Amino acid sequence: MTVRVGVVGVGNIGSSHALNLARVVSGSAVSVLFDADPDRAAALAADLGARSVRTVPELFDADDVDAVLVASPDDVHAEQLLLGLPAGKPVLCEKPLATTEADARAVIDAEVGLGRRLVQLGFMRRFDPGYVQLKQELTAQGIGEPLVVHNVHRNTSAPYGLVTERTLTNMVVHELDIGRWLLDEEYASVMVVAGRPGPLTPDGQHDPILVVLRTASGVVVEVEAFANAQYGYEVVCRVTGSRGQAVMGDGSYITRSTSFSRGVDLPELWLGRFAEAYRLQLQGWVDAVQGGEPFPGATSWDGFAATVVATRAVEAYRSGGWVDVVLPPRPSLYAGPDVGPRP
Amino acid sequence: MTVRVGVVGVGNIGSSHALNLARVVSGSAVSVLFDADPDRAAALAADLGARSVRTVPELFDADDVDAVLVASPDDVHAEQLLLGLPAGKPVLCEKPLATTEADARAVIDAEVGLGRRLVQLGFMRRFDPGYVQLKQELTAQGIGEPLVVHNVHRNTSAPYGLVTERTLTNMVVHELDIGRWLLDEEYASVMVVAGRPGPLTPDGQHDPILVVLRTASGVVVEVEAFANAQYGYEVVCRVTGSRGQAVMGDGSYITRSTSFSRGVDLPELWLGRFAEAYRLQLQGWVDAVQGGEPFPGATSWDGFAATVVATRAVEAYRSGGWVDVVLPPRPSLYAGPDVGPRP
Amino acid sequence: MTVRVGVVGVGNIGSSHALNLARVVSGSAVSVLFDADPDRAAALAADLGARSVRTVPELFDADDVDAVLVASPDDVHAEQLLLGLPAGKPVLCEKPLATTEADARAVIDAEVGLGRRLVQLGFMRRFDPGYVQLKQELTAQGIGEPLVVHNVHRNTSAPYGLVTERTLTNMVVHELDIGRWLLDEEYASVMVVAGRPGPLTPDGQHDPILVVLRTASGVVVEVEAFANAQYGYEVVCRVTGSRGQAVMGDGSYITRSTSFSRGVDLPELWLGRFAEAYRLQLQGWVDAVQGGEPFPGATSWDGFAATVVATRAVEAYRSGGWVDVVLPPRPSLYAGPDVGPRP
Amino acid sequence: MTVRVGVVGVGNIGSSHALNLARVVSGSAVSVLFDADPDRAAALAADLGARSVRTVPELFDADDVDAVLVASPDDVHAEQLLLGLPAGKPVLCEKPLATTEADARAVIDAEVGLGRRLVQLGFMRRFDPGYVQLKQELTAQGIGEPLVVHNVHRNTSAPYGLVTERTLTNMVVHELDIGRWLLDEEYASVMVVAGRPGPLTPDGQHDPILVVLRTASGVVVEVEAFANAQYGYEVVCRVTGSRGQAVMGDGSYITRSTSFSRGVDLPELWLGRFAEAYRLQLQGWVDAVQGGEPFPGATSWDGFAATVVATRAVEAYRSGGWVDVVLPPRPSLYAGPDVGPRP
Repeated sequence: MTVRVGVVGVGNIGSSHALNLARVVSGSAVSVLFDADPDRAAALAADLGARSVRTVPELFDADDVDAVLVASPDDVHAEQLLLGLPAGKPVLCEKPLATTEADARAVIDAEVGLGRRLVQLGFMRRFDPGYVQLKQELTAQGIGEPLVVHNVHRNTSAPYGLVTERTLTNMVVHELDIGRWLLDEEYASVMVVAGRPGPLTPDGQHDPILVVLRTASGVVVEVEAFANAQYGYEVVCRVTGSRGQAVMGDGSYITRSTSFSRGVDLPELWLGRFAEAYRLQLQGWVDAVQGGEPFPGATSWDGFAATVVATRAVEAYRSGGWVDVVLPPRPSLYAGPDVGPRP
Repeated sequence: MTVRVGVVGVGNIGSSHALNLARVVSGSAVSVLFDADPDRAAALAADLGARSVRTVPELFDADDVDAVLVASPDDVHAEQLLLGLPAGKPVLCEKPLATTEADARAVIDAEVGLGRRLVQLGFMRRFDPGYVQLKQELTAQGIGEPLVVHNVHRNTSAPYGLVTERTLTNMVVHELDIGRWLLDEEYASVMVVAGRPGPLTPDGQHDPILVVLRTASGVVVEVEAFANAQYGYEVVCRVTGSRGQAVMGDGSYITRSTSFSRGVDLPELWLGRFAEAYRLQLQGWVDAVQGGEPFPGATSWDGFAATVVATRAVEAYRSGGWVDVVLPPRPSLYAGPDVGPRP
Repeated sequence: MTVRVGVVGVGNIGSSHALNLARVVSGSAVSVLFDADPDRAAALAADLGARSVRTVPELFDADDVDAVLVASPDDVHAEQLLLGLPAGKPVLCEKPLATTEADARAVIDAEVGLGRRLVQLGFMRRFDPGYVQLKQELTAQGIGEPLVVHNVHRNTSAPYGLVTERTLTNMVVHELDIGRWLLDEEYASVMVVAGRPGPLTPDGQHDPILVVLRTASGVVVEVEAFANAQYGYEVVCRVTGSRGQAVMGDGSYITRSTSFSRGVDLPELWLGRFAEAYRLQLQGWVDAVQGGEPFPGATSWDGFAATVVATRAVEAYRSGGWVDVVLPPRPSLYAGPDVGPRP
Repeated sequence: MTVRVGVVGVGNIGSSHALNLARVVSGSAVSVLFDADPDRAAALAADLGARSVRTVPELFDADDVDAVLVASPDDVHAEQLLLGLPAGKPVLCEKPLATTEADARAVIDAEVGLGRRLVQLGFMRRFDPGYVQLKQELTAQGIGEPLVVHNVHRNTSAPYGLVTERTLTNMVVHELDIGRWLLDEEYASVMVVAGRPGPLTPDGQHDPILVVLRTASGVVVEVEAFANAQYGYEVVCRVTGSRGQAVMGDGSYITRSTSFSRGVDLPELWLGRFAEAYRLQLQGWVDAVQGGEPFPGATSWDGFAATVVATRAVEAYRSGGWVDVVLPPRPSLYAGPDVGPRP
């Protein structure tokens, strides 16, 4: 009855997931670990009462693995998924699905070839109580039809150096997915406005940037991204609708007054803000695995769509003008509404 | 048509009032100044195109003085009012009316003897847009009948040294007046809870303190006063009613994000918070003088009542228990509803 | 390795706990249920794959019960604990420990007689991230030494009718515990100010009320309780310290603008506010059971102390004056610092 | 010594200004009125103890007029200024300076021809304490160098019908001016993104719209404008800088809790938000007139620049692409820094 999970990649985020699966999430255990660094995998395995293996296929094929979590570096996601999918086991793959459109397409093709949706993608914001509540506002009783979506995404600093393309594919990709999920429609065009660079921006790169998108129905989506904002980590999403406006800021508990200022802390990293979302995502996935039910989160198709839009955003950034976004027809495997987090 | 004002006392607050009357308030001019320090009066008079005099009666009796503003030290208010009232001119007197109940009573008696309400007392919070709006909430359509009033009053530091009695008569006296004004009724009893002293509290004194009052109808009024709060100046008033709750905090324009914290500035002094209230008060008074209409602000009787309650609060502080508050019958001169700020 | 939990009382809160243990908390299962209504127990047991029993001792003694959660009505907590403690199994008991001081004392005596701390009491606010963060502010680097603690506790309505004594023993008891936990010291005296009754208050009862306490070191603790506040559920805790002030309000995600008003939702019930605290509490307890470690939450002694203070508060309410609070010496079983929630 | 003001146009805003000048602003009086509707002018003149005239030149030339305030409909501003400027008297003209670039240019040429700056333009936001404080944040000690400016401008409804061009020239023109004033530099290009229309938008028009500008130094300025937002009036300006971020929202005094919601009121019209700014602007102008000093507010050149940018915005709206903004050389008359509001 317990879901035995194999974890591919046990760096920063992978080991955090493994610990959650072993100790926080109800109904799951961690059985097998793989990492490019075999010692790292072995050490964590010892801690968790699991074992480690030397190759990705070994992990996917293991008898004591019911499901697999992939948390390896972005650029090997696709390769590992292609190796593992034939095993026919459920996979939770960290975002992004791939770093190139071709790789993303290959995964989609493989999954479609197998005829089953095996992959849930780690867009954990869909599980965040803030975004979930925001989406619930988009009704006739709430703020009405969405007209404009304004996003703010600040990182304290760019952990791997500032490359504007990566800002789009790795950071803004969250808003790209959230916009689709909030609005239940695809983007039609995208533009990137690169303005005056902040003090930590390398020559030839831009930060902050403004991404402007239009959806098929004409909703304007803005993303103000600042990867080296320095003042803290901050995510805001404001939706202006036909009847009102709703803003998802950062929930906070403590307002402190010292030295002629009253205010709240800002987290330094995303984990503090989204820890609950990560947990709910894992639990939702484990529950679906146990129950044989559809996964409640993002599918491979969602991951593919995000990659496509991010790629177009890179083009728009380079060209300075509008770039159309056109998705190929959605395979019937991915038809039907998303399930969404269960209460 | 211009109201020529004589100003008694041109220290900190007196000179600020004089400048407002001369340059900000419409329809007023400053004609004559008096100060215990004649040089200070003469210097400001030169700036304002006014003249200075050596005695208070001279000022009250001057032909070029239509009205008088008293902003001298607290403990000479009563004496100066008694000297000046016989001149029959309108007076705006800074709070408090007096520092002892006997002195306050003497002013009341003099005014009653003259048969005219000549004095408006400087409880400028009654003109503050925040308190005005808060009072408007106390209706059947708003928060309903008031049940509990919670006040927070923080000073950054006690400018003249910390003496708990003065905290009550000079600082908490604002909340004592506001409670009466908000609730339109008198207090019935008062108690002071003196707890653990803050680090800047001299031996034998207490700071912070909690003042608890009950009105005639049973409304509980709390005042958390902290004269050496250090973190800034802050005034909050929260009214819990039979249908809801309204809080008057400090309006603020700027929210700043730096160094992992998001917040707003707190003013260092009361002037920043209540500058508009001071202005509206002056203008309301000048307008009433010009129009021969009743003053829109606090009367001598209001000042007297505040002094009485403050005196009882001092007793309660000393005794540690409840002290009844009983006002003598209100002279018919002060009958009728307050006029209040005009829109 | 899985902790098999028996649940005593499966009404509102008991069934919620049972579902959490079965489906949300990692490492736990629900094996046996008891309820005064055997049909209710049997129905839930069927849902959870558990079984139900007809008596409390049967449940405590069952071989397939490793630990027991007590969520029956307040007034049978003590009786059931006395029946069950001899089984020597860990117990998580909903607050309060008992409704009379004598009953609370009997539980303490029984536990001391057994020589082991078996009971964790359900003061789940100690697990709430808001309170946890608030406590972290009480340092020399934060707001300094605590001087005044102001609590606001509003219930939308009193679910079982308004009886002021119950307001104190069942509702304010949360703040009584939190004050001890925040300040790490005992109360020295308590007073209750009963003011003007709100519109839903029965004759002879009072609501809202103001509870004022002083701790051994002189910290003033206020609790403004309003059991029929109608406008929503709200919990605020503001600590004024020697260097600043910290306020724990209600965290919120969505600010909505419609019809000339901008604001946030207030939850209707406490569950919305404290769901996470309940979960963390359960998980902390299960983990401690599995690991044979000290429980991270409130002990029986904490429950006893809360009962004593609540009893004194009732007396103070009746007498209108100060009532001293004196705890008997703390048994050595309860010596040592609290463990507190683990990160 | 009193400044006698003639007022051209006494509709909504003109009569409000006239009343302020007569009764609120210190040092001013209203002497002569003109309106296209002579009865309206005569009626207000009777109220204020002034007189009315039948032509604009009569008013400008009158011996009892020291200065003129123009508050007529937008499209006659330029014509009236051209008629009146030869009189050589100071003018406070409501924004916009003109509704076409040619008209705006004609005023500039006339003023330059006279060799004196006679006109202050009514961009009263420069006097708003919120914007003043926001500008003060743009320092090395504050949020550093400005990088992105995000504006939100919501009107409850479009009072004269929704025409997107007018949204730009009459509504967004405020942000166009504020951006120049905040950043102390000119715009280099502008684009308008017209998305999904709200429910009250006539066919062929767009609302909401997103205006994106780039300044000479590369600062990105966004304006999210919604003329029929329905939910209330709201103005927000957020500046992201090299060291942090500052947001000017709407100051508010009262937070109200009723019916499971806690929030603040939004004003229905701009007057509630900017009343103080209007007052400060008038007073600053009167003071400058009395003192023979440079006006502290916007000049004709500022008005001209705003008209140019608004015109380019209209073009960008129509073309869907970027439109360059190029101002002609600034006449030496307008050289030197702005004076700005005096404390």
